[in-house]
Amino acid sequence: MRDWNMQGRNREARLARAAHLADGKRVAAADARALLETVLEPGDRVCLEGNNQKQADFLARALASVDPARVNGLHMVQSVLALPEHLDVFERGIAAKLDFSFSGPQGARLARMVADGQIAVGAIHTYLELFGRYFVDLTPRVSLVAAQSADAAGNLYTGPNTEDTPVIVEATAFKRGIVIAQVNELVDAVPRVDIPGGWVDFVIQSPTPHYIEPLFTRDPAQISEIQVLMAMMAIKGIYAEYGVQRLNHGIGFDTAAIELLLPTYADSLGLKGRICKHWALNPHPALIPAIEAGFVESVHSFGSEMGMENYIRARPDVFFTGADGSMRSNRALCQAAGHYACDLFIGSTLQMDLAGNSSTATLGRIAGFGGAPNMGADARGRRHASPAWLRAGREAGGDGGGMPRGRKLVVQMVETFREHMQPAFVERLDAWELAESAGMELPPVMIYGDDVTHVLTEEGIANLLLCRTAGEREQAIRGVAGYTPVGRGRDRRMVEDLRDRGIIRRPEDLGIDKRMATRDLLAARSIKDLVRASGGLYDPPKRFRNW
Amino acid sequence: MRDWNMQGRNREARLARAAHLADGKRVAAADARALLETVLEPGDRVCLEGNNQKQADFLARALASVDPARVNGLHMVQSVLALPEHLDVFERGIAAKLDFSFSGPQGARLARMVADGQIAVGAIHTYLELFGRYFVDLTPRVSLVAAQSADAAGNLYTGPNTEDTPVIVEATAFKRGIVIAQVNELVDAVPRVDIPGGWVDFVIQSPTPHYIEPLFTRDPAQISEIQVLMAMMAIKGIYAEYGVQRLNHGIGFDTAAIELLLPTYADSLGLKGRICKHWALNPHPALIPAIEAGFVESVHSFGSEMGMENYIRARPDVFFTGADGSMRSNRALCQAAGHYACDLFIGSTLQMDLAGNSSTATLGRIAGFGGAPNMGADARGRRHASPAWLRAGREAGGDGGGMPRGRKLVVQMVETFREHMQPAFVERLDAWELAESAGMELPPVMIYGDDVTHVLTEEGIANLLLCRTAGEREQAIRGVAGYTPVGRGRDRRMVEDLRDRGIIRRPEDLGIDKRMATRDLLAARSIKDLVRASGGLYDPPKRFRNW
Repeated sequence: MRDWNMQGRNREARLARAAHLADGKRVAAADARALLETVLEPGDRVCLEGNNQKQADFLARALASVDPARVNGLHMVQSVLALPEHLDVFERGIAAKLDFSFSGPQGARLARMVADGQIAVGAIHTYLELFGRYFVDLTPRVSLVAAQSADAAGNLYTGPNTEDTPVIVEATAFKRGIVIAQVNELVDAVPRVDIPGGWVDFVIQSPTPHYIEPLFTRDPAQISEIQVLMAMMAIKGIYAEYGVQRLNHGIGFDTAAIELLLPTYADSLGLKGRICKHWALNPHPALIPAIEAGFVESVHSFGSEMGMENYIRARPDVFFTGADGSMRSNRALCQAAGHYACDLFIGSTLQMDLAGNSSTATLGRIAGFGGAPNMGADARGRRHASPAWLRAGREAGGDGGGMPRGRKLVVQMVETFREHMQPAFVERLDAWELAESAGMELPPVMIYGDDVTHVLTEEGIANLLLCRTAGEREQAIRGVAGYTPVGRGRDRRMVEDLRDRGIIRRPEDLGIDKRMATRDLLAARSIKDLVRASGGLYDPPKRFRNW
Repeated sequence: MRDWNMQGRNREARLARAAHLADGKRVAAADARALLETVLEPGDRVCLEGNNQKQADFLARALASVDPARVNGLHMVQSVLALPEHLDVFERGIAAKLDFSFSGPQGARLARMVADGQIAVGAIHTYLELFGRYFVDLTPRVSLVAAQSADAAGNLYTGPNTEDTPVIVEATAFKRGIVIAQVNELVDAVPRVDIPGGWVDFVIQSPTPHYIEPLFTRDPAQISEIQVLMAMMAIKGIYAEYGVQRLNHGIGFDTAAIELLLPTYADSLGLKGRICKHWALNPHPALIPAIEAGFVESVHSFGSEMGMENYIRARPDVFFTGADGSMRSNRALCQAAGHYACDLFIGSTLQMDLAGNSSTATLGRIAGFGGAPNMGADARGRRHASPAWLRAGREAGGDGGGMPRGRKLVVQMVETFREHMQPAFVERLDAWELAESAGMELPPVMIYGDDVTHVLTEEGIANLLLCRTAGEREQAIRGVAGYTPVGRGRDRRMVEDLRDRGIIRRPEDLGIDKRMATRDLLAARSIKDLVRASGGLYDPPKRFRNW
């Protein structure tokens, strides 16, 4: 007779071993390491909540401090590698294998450790893909999550940074796994229940509040006039042309410039109410002026942003908030919304090749892609129409099988040269060499060229939808690649032909006067301006204050 | 000064108007209509929980009975139209507009009412797409949901049919909407919290338990020997060839036959452990023998299936279950898993054209597609590799931009003739005429031809990945279309050439002896066999019992 409840029995054994450490569900911070050494078993699949923003940092430190003789060979399945401890666990031999989505600040160290054989990388995912695998072949055995507060029953209140917590806990709790939460406070009653207590096994009050990274704050003072020009082109040449009402913006100064031009430049074009009403977006501070100007009807968010708490609380008609007044974010559901309910994704990249394939993976850095592959992919399962989607589909000329179909607008916005005069356009992505050196099955591409519809640089917009051959696509990309070697390699006659056909459009073709592209057009030119625009509600983190 | 809390104030006004009807959150069943007439306002966007299986039927009846002079012009945003009341609300002028995903049993009446101008259809969606829009531009103002039980605080226990409830309630509750739940029982303490009480406004005990449709039960007695042959081809020609470990099956006898051949035919080929370990699937009774035989490691489900409760409870290592022992399903998360974490989707269709586009929309019926467009679309945001996905990508020859990439296996399994000798292969889909008559922007295609990788009929398998031109694809499809006009229109020489190249494979090419394709190969030949295989744990609904 097969035992069909091995997971359940194993769970009970773990809980029994740890019982002496807990008072109800509560465990003292001083016992965190002991709890992990007691509950974890070698080879466990462990999700350590490392989100885009919120970090289970106390539990990360505790995990990095366990005795590798007792806990080892762990398989980490986590969204983001943000903290040193996320890699320390590999260095100390506690963990061996890694499946993840994004590694921003740890990208260089991760690349070194992979090269040294200290980490076996399963794969780099887009967030929703990793979450999907939590329910199929990467279900966590133990999850270590972070919340704002907990009551004695283990009910968790996440506050605005709900982020990945619901999907992690659901996958773990309903497959007989163990859920351990660090919280900032223990309270008698949580302001609202974000995670039911029945899904949570242990709660630890951490000595300091969990770390949050203000990842989506961009200081308008750093926006350049080239970025203003590119933002004008995006608004007039893409948003207005297609009538984009539902969208997602990537992180960066390029898209922050667009947000800051809505109440000024876009308004002067009569676009209020005609573009940018519904957003799948974190509460970017740069969006405040557009919200105040009445451009924005709704914003659903993956996570929150530090300093935006009071502003969000005062604008409940715009944001998704709970009865307690604070935001309820949800990365899994917002990614689904971004994929299926948005007509446009616009973001930046580091490198793009002649076919439009782009990657943020460069030599010596394994960065991961976060949400971009999901947002920046045509949603082939989408069936509802919108004017923007239908027009993009018409321009693309259907699917080749005679069946008309819409298309998502996927815009890559990039200056032709990035930092240190590195060209953004290349013949061959660094991703190829990275794949070879790290033993990856495929080069780590962020957005595939056949999903990209527009490439926007300071030189103009290349509309790839209208290209009919690979040769045309290549020349369209070269035609906006400026003075990079790729740009200088253009076939001048063909590029002029593409311009005549409206496939390449320069600022002057769009009726944009480059002399107007000054910082004066920005609705806010500093963090202080954003605070002012918010009526004093926005409370920026210290590092963004210079007054 | 703009009022930024109009939704919140409107919500409070609705709650205040209804206060006299409620005792805490509880409202008497007799007051259900009065509650809806009090809470609803003309033009409201309303989500009436009509899932694939579970139905908020009592609230549907209550809504259909309100006074249209008080409540009218509603915009219904719901997954499934299953009950007559779902259309009655339009007939009575209570609702005017509809956005939905699936309308199985109501498809013909829906088509008539659309033609008569009684319903304005916004769009047909795939489930996850509609859920995505709940957070962007189709957020419900009022949601009417169904659960098993509730406590006085409004905490809901859904039991195994959690389905759409979490995503509906989250979208509504956190945008200041009103959530009304019908429950089968009022209890002192719910066995587990599926929906926190703070997210729920009113609870009504319905006079009878909510309706559940056993939509995924297929009686093995009705599986034909042609279906056995096709299942053998699927297993040997696709599952084994690609090493498919993670998959989703559509509903139907075709895929039920595959499930029932795993412990017999697939086992005889030595495939146990090599295929079909992880499933995104409702608990199909036809899967019981494969589970018992040790083929199946895990199953995550969109919803549950009637009669499977005790079996699931006794197999917790396989299913996702809660501390109470019953399943926790979740349609949104399982759809994400099906899209991103599965290597294969296989399902049936009603019509397929020469480019491989398929549709279940036929003249006079607007059926909708449910999950198929999402599962049956290449997940272009996917970045993790698997042997099956890599091989499909290699066969497809990359993306044309020189960048290697994987592909999802999307198999359409169809007998060349369906009921009443209607050919399944057609020159032109009925969807074209339906689009015209119903004023749709695009023909309602279930799965687009360029996402289909294999067409499987009783005549053989056409591998569309290996086709290099539209002409080859057409002949590959004609080459398995049997004696339909499309099949008879084949170019015999080209089809033989495709067969030589392994693009078309007949049963004999796969080493399948057609004489073996008998019902004797099925691991269960009746519902009673399934009960026996489950050790008496499966308790089929009455309509499936003939003993």
